[in-house]
Amino acid sequence: MKISELSDQTGVSIATLKFYLREGLLRPGTLTAPNQADYGESHVRRARLVRALREVAHLSIAQIAAITGALDRGEELYDVMGVTVDSLGERPAAFTPAQEAAAAEVDRLLATLGLPAREESLARQQLVVSFEAVREMLFPGLPVEALVPYARAAEDVVRAEVAATPGIFSVDPEQVLERAVLGLTLFEPILLAFRRLTHEKLVVDHLEGTAPPEAGPD
Amino acid sequence: MKISELSDQTGVSIATLKFYLREGLLRPGTLTAPNQADYGESHVRRARLVRALREVAHLSIAQIAAITGALDRGEELYDVMGVTVDSLGERPAAFTPAQEAAAAEVDRLLATLGLPAREESLARQQLVVSFEAVREMLFPGLPVEALVPYARAAEDVVRAEVAATPGIFSVDPEQVLERAVLGLTLFEPILLAFRRLTHEKLVVDHLEGTAPPEAGPD
Repeated sequence: MKISELSDQTGVSIATLKFYLREGLLRPGTLTAPNQADYGESHVRRARLVRALREVAHLSIAQIAAITGALDRGEELYDVMGVTVDSLGERPAAFTPAQEAAAAEVDRLLATLGLPAREESLARQQLVVSFEAVREMLFPGLPVEALVPYARAAEDVVRAEVAATPGIFSVDPEQVLERAVLGLTLFEPILLAFRRLTHEKLVVDHLEGTAPPEAGPD
Repeated sequence: MKISELSDQTGVSIATLKFYLREGLLRPGTLTAPNQADYGESHVRRARLVRALREVAHLSIAQIAAITGALDRGEELYDVMGVTVDSLGERPAAFTPAQEAAAAEVDRLLATLGLPAREESLARQQLVVSFEAVREMLFPGLPVEALVPYARAAEDVVRAEVAATPGIFSVDPEQVLERAVLGLTLFEPILLAFRRLTHEKLVVDHLEGTAPPEAGPD
């Protein structure tokens, strides 16, 4: 297909596609004339992935280049996925001593729950930083087990997500990554918004005197 | 107490406390000498609230002044809470026609779930924007009912939070707000981190061939 058709199929403007080509995020098409190239399905998938990384995940061109470079070198999908997911958010500074102590407890909890705890995992780092901040500012001495309800709720959500997306892995790496990025980032505000709305309902119920007993049976 | 003691009790430096006083975020103490003022428990609570709004929620001074101003005018706690929670995040631009259509469906779902849907609620707006983006980029035609698992997971989390914090409302407004801000913001990365780690576990299990059947019974 011509670049104009690639643009139609992906929702990415021709100028932006040319920018992706110049930056090496998109591989060159097959030249059919000195000034015309032919693009295929792999370009459609790649352009969609890059769009998701830029417009939804707000990654920098350098971060995107690291991901597409790893794909182009044929690196293992699991590793590329790790690099990708670890760029979705701001990495905290090196741990303070209090955070190091919290990290040991978090790692113990993750092991108990059977969850992965790669040292460079952004999610694990954010967990450590937030847990330590909760203990410093909100609940001193909070045991790490207090986080289990969050892990359980996350598990329930992921279970529903898996049930809703059969065959998520039976596509090629570009599409797996695009769906992972979109699925991770687009649904995060949804989960948080529902938590906030449920909190607001609680306040309303409390002020109206219709709140259930706080520690009563459901 | 003297300003140095107020600083010790709140973890806010004297220079910062003086800045809060100049900006009117903190009420003046009682003058005990031309150059010395006496501060009380209400100052401790207020300084802690302002610290939480600045350091954890990253609000601007103008946003914080709107909140402390409402408190000082004695406005209803529910309204001050609304203003506060609605400043915890970036407000999206005016809805596009597609987002307006999504909003009608989201509001219908919120009514079914018994959740509040104030028009100016930031959480509702973010729900609408994300739901529409999911439909545009990931799952065209997704029914709004697909969001129910997220609402249920949020409800489970909030239920656990209520059970863990008895008497959350039996403190004064400053403390209710401080705890609400800290509780909302500090636990959000925790919930998201567990979802990401559970996704990663899923990928690991899949690659190792130990994934359970996707739609099978638990």
